[in-house]
Amino acid sequence: MRWLTRRIGPLSPAAPAAPASAFVVPPSRLPAAARAALVDAVGAGHVLDGESERLGRAGGMSYLDLLRRRYPGGLAVPDAVVVPGDPDEVQRVVDACVAHDVGVVPFGGGTSVVGGVAALRGDKAAVIALDLERLDRLVSVDRTSRLAVFQAGVRGPDAQRLLAAHGLTLGHVPQSFERATLGGFAATRSAGQASSGYGRFEDMVQGVRLATPSGPWRLGVAPASAAGPNLRALAVGSEGTLGVITEVTVRVRPSPERERYEGFVLRGWQHATEVVRALAQNGLLADVTRVSDVDETEVTLALKGGFATKALRRYLAARRVHEPCLLILGWHGPAPQRARALRLLKAAGAVPLGRAPGEAWRHGRFSGPRQRDALLDLGVCVETLETATHWSRLRELYDEVRVALHGALDRPVVMCHISHAYETGASLYFTVLAARDPHDPFGQWERAKRAASEAISERGRGTITHHHAVGVDHAPYLRAEIGDVGVSVLAAAKQAADPKGVLNPGKLGL
Amino acid sequence: MRWLTRRIGPLSPAAPAAPASAFVVPPSRLPAAARAALVDAVGAGHVLDGESERLGRAGGMSYLDLLRRRYPGGLAVPDAVVVPGDPDEVQRVVDACVAHDVGVVPFGGGTSVVGGVAALRGDKAAVIALDLERLDRLVSVDRTSRLAVFQAGVRGPDAQRLLAAHGLTLGHVPQSFERATLGGFAATRSAGQASSGYGRFEDMVQGVRLATPSGPWRLGVAPASAAGPNLRALAVGSEGTLGVITEVTVRVRPSPERERYEGFVLRGWQHATEVVRALAQNGLLADVTRVSDVDETEVTLALKGGFATKALRRYLAARRVHEPCLLILGWHGPAPQRARALRLLKAAGAVPLGRAPGEAWRHGRFSGPRQRDALLDLGVCVETLETATHWSRLRELYDEVRVALHGALDRPVVMCHISHAYETGASLYFTVLAARDPHDPFGQWERAKRAASEAISERGRGTITHHHAVGVDHAPYLRAEIGDVGVSVLAAAKQAADPKGVLNPGKLGL
Repeated sequence: MRWLTRRIGPLSPAAPAAPASAFVVPPSRLPAAARAALVDAVGAGHVLDGESERLGRAGGMSYLDLLRRRYPGGLAVPDAVVVPGDPDEVQRVVDACVAHDVGVVPFGGGTSVVGGVAALRGDKAAVIALDLERLDRLVSVDRTSRLAVFQAGVRGPDAQRLLAAHGLTLGHVPQSFERATLGGFAATRSAGQASSGYGRFEDMVQGVRLATPSGPWRLGVAPASAAGPNLRALAVGSEGTLGVITEVTVRVRPSPERERYEGFVLRGWQHATEVVRALAQNGLLADVTRVSDVDETEVTLALKGGFATKALRRYLAARRVHEPCLLILGWHGPAPQRARALRLLKAAGAVPLGRAPGEAWRHGRFSGPRQRDALLDLGVCVETLETATHWSRLRELYDEVRVALHGALDRPVVMCHISHAYETGASLYFTVLAARDPHDPFGQWERAKRAASEAISERGRGTITHHHAVGVDHAPYLRAEIGDVGVSVLAAAKQAADPKGVLNPGKLGL
Repeated sequence: MRWLTRRIGPLSPAAPAAPASAFVVPPSRLPAAARAALVDAVGAGHVLDGESERLGRAGGMSYLDLLRRRYPGGLAVPDAVVVPGDPDEVQRVVDACVAHDVGVVPFGGGTSVVGGVAALRGDKAAVIALDLERLDRLVSVDRTSRLAVFQAGVRGPDAQRLLAAHGLTLGHVPQSFERATLGGFAATRSAGQASSGYGRFEDMVQGVRLATPSGPWRLGVAPASAAGPNLRALAVGSEGTLGVITEVTVRVRPSPERERYEGFVLRGWQHATEVVRALAQNGLLADVTRVSDVDETEVTLALKGGFATKALRRYLAARRVHEPCLLILGWHGPAPQRARALRLLKAAGAVPLGRAPGEAWRHGRFSGPRQRDALLDLGVCVETLETATHWSRLRELYDEVRVALHGALDRPVVMCHISHAYETGASLYFTVLAARDPHDPFGQWERAKRAASEAISERGRGTITHHHAVGVDHAPYLRAEIGDVGVSVLAAAKQAADPKGVLNPGKLGL
C-alpha cells in the first residue's frame, strides 16, 4: 500500500462489494411455453430461475464486471439457468430455444474478462444461461494416439486430475485454470502459461463436437488434413456464436516426472525482449517462459516475496543491473534444451537467481485475479489487457499502449510482461493500476481501455487480443483486424449455423 | 520392367501422348465485352486466347489429367488465359469477371492432382484461367521477425533462391516443389517433405492477401490471436473458391549450414509405424522423416539405385531382417535431437544403412511425378492417393485402403509410406501400379479411387486428403468429413465472399 499510494496517489473511500440483496433482479421474462420446452429437454430440476442462480451467471470477471457487483444496476441477468446433463440434452436445449426464439449464452467457468458471458438479449424477448457444469466427464482416453475426449464443462483442475489417473497431462494452465472449462478454452482460443511447451489450446484441440441450431456438428478425424479450409479453426474461437461446444478431443502427454522453475534477471526491457526472441528463434524456450518489464519486476520484488529482496538488490547492484527485468523459466520433464538455453542466457549477461523466484511465481500463478477484489476494496482501478505482434513491431506496440494508458489515466502504474513467445513474435500483457475515480469508475476505465485498444488496432499494429477473446468489449475492433470481407464471412457462417440468431447474442459483434 | 510385369501382369500397347493437333479446342466463348474489360484490367498483351495457351492451362497433373492428354476429348479448356501483373490487377480481373459473370480459375503451377485447376464453367457462360505467373516477387523480408512477404505466383525454387540471397530458407519442399507456387501451397494446405521440421505450409503462413469479389481481404497481424475464429485458416485451404490469394506472409528461417540424410531399415510395417510414433511422441523427428512399407521398400531397392542392393540384401539377411521397411531421416542444421533419436532407433533394433539411401532419396525426391509419363507410355496405370489418421487407427486404415485397391484392380502393386508424422497420428501415402485397361482406362482408375476413398471416409476412418486438397475429385467425400453443418457454413462463407459464384466453379463442391 505504501508503494502503491506513492505511485498512483491517494485513494478514495471505495464502494464495498454489494450484498445480493442490493440487486434488483428483474423478474424472468422467459415465456411459459419456452420454460416448459426446456423442462422437457433437461428435467424440471435443471431449469433454475431463482434470483441467486440467475445472478450467479450474470456476467464474467472483467474489472467492469467486478464494478457492476459493487454498483448495482448494470448487470445483465439471464431469465433462467438451464443445466443439461449431456451433449444430447444440450442439443435439445438449443432446439427448444430456437423453437421459442430465446437467446442462449453458453456458460462454463464464467471467467470471461471481455463480456463473453454477458446475458445479452439481442433481439430476443428472453435469454438463458446454458450452464455446462454437468458435462463433467472424461469420455475416453486413447493412449496410443495421445488423445483424450472431454465433455465441455470439465474445469482445468478436474481435467488434470482425471488425466493424472492415466499418467497423462493436458498442460494447459491459463490464469483462469481453477474455474474455467475445456469448452471455454476452446471457444475462446485460450493460451496457457505453459504455451511455449504445450502450445495454445487451439493447437491441442484435435476434434470438437457442437450443438448448433442447424443440428449436431462434429469435426476432426485426423491430426492434419487438406480437406478444404480448417473448419475446426472456425468452430474454435467462435465464442458460442456458431454452436455450443459439448465435447473436445485434445492431445495429451505423459505427466512430466519433475518440474523446475527458475529465475534470471535481464538488463532492461529491450535486452529482455531480445533474449526471449533468441530463445524462441533457437528452439530453446522453456515450457513456461515469461519476462517482466522493469515496472512489473519492481512490483514483483515488492509484493510477491519468497526471496530476499534487499539481498537481491545488493546482488544485482554488484552486477551492475540497473533496470532489472525478471525472467521466469519453467521446465517440465527432462527438458533437453535447458543446457543450451542456459549457455545462451549466460552469453547474454543474464544474472541467475536460482529457483526461489521461479517457485514464488509458480506459487502465486493463479492468484492475480483474486487480488483485484482486495484492491477494489481499497479504491484501486485494476485491470489487465493483452495483445501480440511480430518481433519487429513489439517495441512500438509496447510504447504506444503505454503512452495511451498514461494519457487516459492520472498517474497510473502500467506493468507489462511477455508470457507467450513465438518464432515470429510475442504477446504483451499489461496490468494497469490507478486511483479509482469515485465519481465515474466505469467511464474512467472505459476511456483507458478505448485508448489502449485504438493504439493496438491502429495501422494493424497488433491483434486486439492474444488470448482474452472478443466477447463484447473487443467487438468494436474486430473489423479493423479481419476486414470487411472477414466480418461478412463471419456473419454468413453465423447465419448458416444459427439462422435465427439465438446463440450468444451480441458477442463477436454478431 | 521385369519386376513390374512379374507383379502386375502383361501390359497392353499404350496410347502415346497425343500431339496438340489432336485436340479439338473449342472456340473461346468469352463475350467480347468481357474480353474488353479484361484487356482494360491487364493490357491486351496479357489476355491470351491462343489454343496452345488455353490448352496449357487445361487441367492439372492427376493420372486422369495425364490420360486426358492421351485420349483427346475430356479436357476442360478455359476460354482465355489472363495474366495480371500485381495484386491490384488481380482484383481488377476478379471485378471484371463479376461484372460480366465469367468464371475464374486461379492457376499457379498447375500441379493439382485432384482437378483443382480444371476449367469448369459451373453455371457461367465462360471461364478464364487467371495465371499468377507474373506475381513473382519477394515483396519484403523482416529478418527480426523471420517473415517474408511473397507474391502468390512465386514457384518453390524461386522462393528458395530469393530467400537464399538473405541467408534464409522457407523449408517447404513438397513433391510439386519445382513447379508449384506459394499461392498454391496456401490455397491447398500443402505439406512439404520436411514438414516434421518446418511444419505444414499452413503453419508457416502468418498472413495472406486475397482479391475477392467482395473486395480486397487481408488477414494476419500477429503470430497468434484470439480475435474470434481464425479466418486465416479459412482462407488457407479455400482452393480459390473464396478469393484469389495474391500475397502470402510466411515464416522463414536461417538456411541450415548442412543437411544430412541417412537410411535405416526397420523390421516390418507394424514395427516401422511404432518406431516413427516413438520418434514423433518424444520430439525426435528429423526434419524429413519417412518410412516405406515392405512393398515400397522392395521397389525402392529395385529401382532407385545409389547403393548396392545385393550387398544390402546379404547385410539385412545376416541381421535377420525379413520384412525390411526403409526409413529415411533428413537432418537440417545442427539437429540437437539426432543423438537421442539414434539411441531410440538402436534400442528398437533398427539397422543403420548410412548416408547412401538417404542421398539416393534426396536425389530423386521430385522425380516421382515425372516417372508417370514413362510408365503411361508402357501401358501402366499409375497414381497416388493419401490420407491421415490417428495412431490407434493407422493400421486399420492402411489395411482397409489396401483391401479396397486390391479388390478394385487386377493384380495391382500397392505401396505405402508415412511421410508426415505428428504426436497424435500420421499420413499414409499410397502409390498404385496396375496394368492399364486399354478398353476403359478412365473407368478403371475411377473405380479404384472410389473404392479407396470410401474405405477412407467410412466411419470417419481418416481424412479424405492429408495434403492433395479437395478440388473436384475429393468433393464427394467432404460432407462425410465436415458434416452437413460444415458444408452449409462453407457455402455461406462462399456466398459472402463471392456472391455471384464466379470463383473456381465446382471446386470443394461449391
